[in-house]
Amino acid sequence: MPTSIATVSLSGSLTEKLTAAARAGFDGVEIFENDLLASALPPGEVRARCADLGLRIDLYQPMRDIEAVPEEVHAGNLKRARHKFELMRRLGADTVLVCSSVSPLAVDDDALAAAQLSQLADMAKEFGIRVAYEALAWGRHVNTYDHAWRIVEAAGHPALGTCLDSFHILSRGSDPRGIADIPGDRIFFLQLADAPLPAMDVLQWSRHHRCFPGQGGLDVAGLLRHVLDAGYRGPLSLEVFNDVHRQADAAATAVDAHRSLLLLQEAVGAAELPPPVVPTGIAFAELLTADAEPVTALLAALGFARTARHRGKPVDLWERGAARILVNTAADRRDGTRLAAIGLAFPDPAGAARRAEALHAPVLPRRRALEEAVLDAVSAPDGTELFFVADGASGASGLPDWRGDFAALPDAPGPADATRIDRLAPVLARRRVPEEAVLDAVAAPDGRELFFVADEASDVSRLPHGRGDFAALPDAPGPADVTRVDHLALTQPWHRYDAATLFHRGVLGLDARESIDLADPYGLRRSRAVASADGAVRIALTVGAAPADGTVHAAHIALATDDVVAAARALRAAGGRLLPVPDNYYDDLAARFVFAEGELETYRELGILYDRDADGAFRHCYTETVGRVFFELVQRDPGHQGYGAANAPVRLAAQHTGRLLR
Amino acid sequence: MPTSIATVSLSGSLTEKLTAAARAGFDGVEIFENDLLASALPPGEVRARCADLGLRIDLYQPMRDIEAVPEEVHAGNLKRARHKFELMRRLGADTVLVCSSVSPLAVDDDALAAAQLSQLADMAKEFGIRVAYEALAWGRHVNTYDHAWRIVEAAGHPALGTCLDSFHILSRGSDPRGIADIPGDRIFFLQLADAPLPAMDVLQWSRHHRCFPGQGGLDVAGLLRHVLDAGYRGPLSLEVFNDVHRQADAAATAVDAHRSLLLLQEAVGAAELPPPVVPTGIAFAELLTADAEPVTALLAALGFARTARHRGKPVDLWERGAARILVNTAADRRDGTRLAAIGLAFPDPAGAARRAEALHAPVLPRRRALEEAVLDAVSAPDGTELFFVADGASGASGLPDWRGDFAALPDAPGPADATRIDRLAPVLARRRVPEEAVLDAVAAPDGRELFFVADEASDVSRLPHGRGDFAALPDAPGPADVTRVDHLALTQPWHRYDAATLFHRGVLGLDARESIDLADPYGLRRSRAVASADGAVRIALTVGAAPADGTVHAAHIALATDDVVAAARALRAAGGRLLPVPDNYYDDLAARFVFAEGELETYRELGILYDRDADGAFRHCYTETVGRVFFELVQRDPGHQGYGAANAPVRLAAQHTGRLLR
Repeated sequence: MPTSIATVSLSGSLTEKLTAAARAGFDGVEIFENDLLASALPPGEVRARCADLGLRIDLYQPMRDIEAVPEEVHAGNLKRARHKFELMRRLGADTVLVCSSVSPLAVDDDALAAAQLSQLADMAKEFGIRVAYEALAWGRHVNTYDHAWRIVEAAGHPALGTCLDSFHILSRGSDPRGIADIPGDRIFFLQLADAPLPAMDVLQWSRHHRCFPGQGGLDVAGLLRHVLDAGYRGPLSLEVFNDVHRQADAAATAVDAHRSLLLLQEAVGAAELPPPVVPTGIAFAELLTADAEPVTALLAALGFARTARHRGKPVDLWERGAARILVNTAADRRDGTRLAAIGLAFPDPAGAARRAEALHAPVLPRRRALEEAVLDAVSAPDGTELFFVADGASGASGLPDWRGDFAALPDAPGPADATRIDRLAPVLARRRVPEEAVLDAVAAPDGRELFFVADEASDVSRLPHGRGDFAALPDAPGPADVTRVDHLALTQPWHRYDAATLFHRGVLGLDARESIDLADPYGLRRSRAVASADGAVRIALTVGAAPADGTVHAAHIALATDDVVAAARALRAAGGRLLPVPDNYYDDLAARFVFAEGELETYRELGILYDRDADGAFRHCYTETVGRVFFELVQRDPGHQGYGAANAPVRLAAQHTGRLLR
Repeated sequence: MPTSIATVSLSGSLTEKLTAAARAGFDGVEIFENDLLASALPPGEVRARCADLGLRIDLYQPMRDIEAVPEEVHAGNLKRARHKFELMRRLGADTVLVCSSVSPLAVDDDALAAAQLSQLADMAKEFGIRVAYEALAWGRHVNTYDHAWRIVEAAGHPALGTCLDSFHILSRGSDPRGIADIPGDRIFFLQLADAPLPAMDVLQWSRHHRCFPGQGGLDVAGLLRHVLDAGYRGPLSLEVFNDVHRQADAAATAVDAHRSLLLLQEAVGAAELPPPVVPTGIAFAELLTADAEPVTALLAALGFARTARHRGKPVDLWERGAARILVNTAADRRDGTRLAAIGLAFPDPAGAARRAEALHAPVLPRRRALEEAVLDAVSAPDGTELFFVADGASGASGLPDWRGDFAALPDAPGPADATRIDRLAPVLARRRVPEEAVLDAVAAPDGRELFFVADEASDVSRLPHGRGDFAALPDAPGPADVTRVDHLALTQPWHRYDAATLFHRGVLGLDARESIDLADPYGLRRSRAVASADGAVRIALTVGAAPADGTVHAAHIALATDDVVAAARALRAAGGRLLPVPDNYYDDLAARFVFAEGELETYRELGILYDRDADGAFRHCYTETVGRVFFELVQRDPGHQGYGAANAPVRLAAQHTGRLLR
């Protein structure tokens, strides 16, 4: 019998998957939609690649939430379907999988389901496509194979058949003997999977997935109140069987465990801790690098200006709007460029620090030099240094302002320092052509040519200014507003994900959202947002697929802008490079949302990703990665609380390719 | 409130756990029994260590399957309990946890449960100990906290109270409000744990844990038969969502996937493959090493003799009974010593090789040199080379015998070769004292002294025999029989565990047993045995806790003996070193089993582990580890099918300590 495999069953990019399937002897593949969307290959090239490998495209999958919906939703579904069928024609795929609906909009009405699936099949037939309808084991109304077949039979449409999936049938304990009564030519497709038994009963849940109070979803505090009401005065003891803790450093786990009990006691009024002080903003993010050039070039392209230099340390302050980034060059070259510290602004930084210390956050030695502000700082579970700085509201309290440690440029070394390097390196011939400025230049020991040009503070009437050599491009976009840091995204050590949640929730008073899975081509990642109620501080905590995960382990800084298109154009005009996004993604966007004339083409040109929910739209794009840091430009509709998670698989796949838009 | 943590919640050895708990600020600990058994610290020292760290021992846990059992079982339980209470006295622990029974012997009789728990509490009271009875969420008859409390209340014994566990209560959705009605002084202990929600519904099961047909527990072949009966003739397609596959090399996963479909088609009669040929024995195991000395010293201590040398390769054959080990020195030094190849004996090796090839096992280049047998060989999923050799039954068919490639020693270099080294190294003064043999000796370039002594084949009337210098010890044990290889234990690459199961089952026709968890101090390991029906070939496939697992990654060779005590004594007498097993383990054995006078003391002296089930006993001990290889001596009662899994946590903990018996 011909054999086939769904691309979702294999790791890697779509082309890696196709090659692996063909080499292993498969006759065909099911194309999983997300794999296509994340691929740079247009559908026609995927078709050609498959043909070249001797693979048929047996199925395109899945279409979801199609049947038994209100009429206006159905009309939208048919529009989406037409788009898919056109795509399938380009792919050369003649069968599409439709999973039974899980939508709350779906009604329990087999006749309506049959009628709407018939209309879908009518359209499919125009394209020479067959529709295979499958019962998901967790479908809202249709979740058994015999139910799905009754609907297909009732529809009686030649282009509508059923798809059987061994997992969906056997996992529910359905009796498979009824299958033999379905006419074989109405079984359009057969998907096979096995699964370990028992998958997860309460015993397995208990033995492998317990966690410390506050890290999970059980109301442990509520239970504790009842126990205290009973008069229990014995110890609070943690008995936590957890596969991850079994591997993790015991000392760190124990600290996290004890922190959970402190917070639990606070929650039931059995212990008093310094009260939570919620941060009101991200004062700065500090990048540590041995070579400032690549990252400062990127910052400059993002419209940041170097505004000040630390009085005692090799740290520059770069600013754009309220977004502040420190570039610290006191790094070991081997570490590359990374996000090392975050300044969080608090109305009461000392109070925030007292709470952190009471909750076992490792207090860092206070950095102090002449004329420097004393800043409290602790280490987060992932090792990031968190500085507690005063926000606007605390300025009146007489607390030192960290920015006082920085001297405003132009105290930075300028042309006057040239003589010192001159002793080491030959002066280059001054380059001069008519209308060009005459610039002093020397060759650095590594061969780089160093030009000494006048800065803004120089007397331009005496010194020629290098920028005079460049003519402004008439269509160069003006600077777009980057207003602040929208959020920070931090990759967590594998064993510290739950600890990080508890830390940000319990120590910093941020709210934690549910953990979600993000499909990276080389493994699932998990991500959870923590944020202050007003969204002024947002941090996305992400963890890789496995302890040894070799995939992108970057942190990133998302910058808020009111106009992501203008900001992206400004970045490119300034020589910055953006992450390209596959055309397949935009083709899919076109089917899912309505855009203004030209809007989608602009997104496609700039690699801007798009998401929308009831609270509005989220538009974002990504820069190149420097060391282990990259930037995101975010235009967030007021009220939208997301982080573009739906687009993460496409973004991660694009980052793995290593290609960049110029 | 005082805080406490169960040792099972933390990673590492018992002392690491205690230190971490104390440093994090906990006031006490629950000692998890297995952590004590695997520790080399006697109970009194654990007590002293805790006191030193400022930790109370709040609980000893768990006792299982105590209540509502037949009278004769209850008598045995009380005997076990007395042992535990004595142990707890030495520990200084005054509360013991009793979990509700999961035993099939338990009956649904609350009055009997109360009566038997009362008797237990009576005995506990003598020791000043309190019994805390807890409902496991999966208890056979008692699985809610209110049910457990009703039994405690009915017993009305002052030394019997209840233990509440937030996981067991909340995971079942029990209403915790009833807790407030329990008198607080009858709640002897409170265990707290949280857990993520939802733990595992069918959706999560489907999205993360599907596997290829034959790797799990669903009857996929049965389902396929019904589909074929229906007349379906489309493709067999695999749709497998699996977190591990998402990370694994796509090419290897695809091969494994296609193999699963070939086997599935064979199972339903839709495809014909070369029929399975089940191996009848382990012909040899081949160790690859750059430095043969440590491993051959160990082999010699195990009573192996070097019997032959390969005619064309740097490979020696070592034999003891029917156990044969090849020592191949053609290795890269950095790889250390490892188990590189296995010879499996088949009645039809060529047929076995044909099946392996048809099922995509990578065929290795046939090793062939003048006078060498041509052997078929394939690579197993973990990279181990599998050679297909003729067994006794196939000798008559004219197949070449692999042993023909080996020339029997004494063609090995002997005293006659001495002159060649003599040119490079000074001849040492011949050592001679009265009654000693005169031995030729040279100094090797590294300073080692090399003595040239006569082997068995030498004319002892002319050459003095070095062993004549040694007087036999009167009590030295005679050689014990090592009869054959009992089993091989192979550590699998993390991503290849399911693939290894399918390979050994489908390609080699071995039966796979259920996968079990083994608690290594630094993470859970999983292990699954594959074996031929008669037990002639047994292989244990083990996988580490995580892809990056840095814990013991050794393979081991288990040697069958009819007398493990004699074999262990012989090994030690010959200078071999055995893995020491903590006294705590033997104290526990004493409570669990009945031994003959002196039997347990012998096991304790030699580090022999013991297990027993309805099919008899299993006695085993372990040697030191050389590179990534160690040996096990196994005395298996006829009919016993186990591998000593119950003892694996103690063994793994002992291996982590790195101590050895001399």
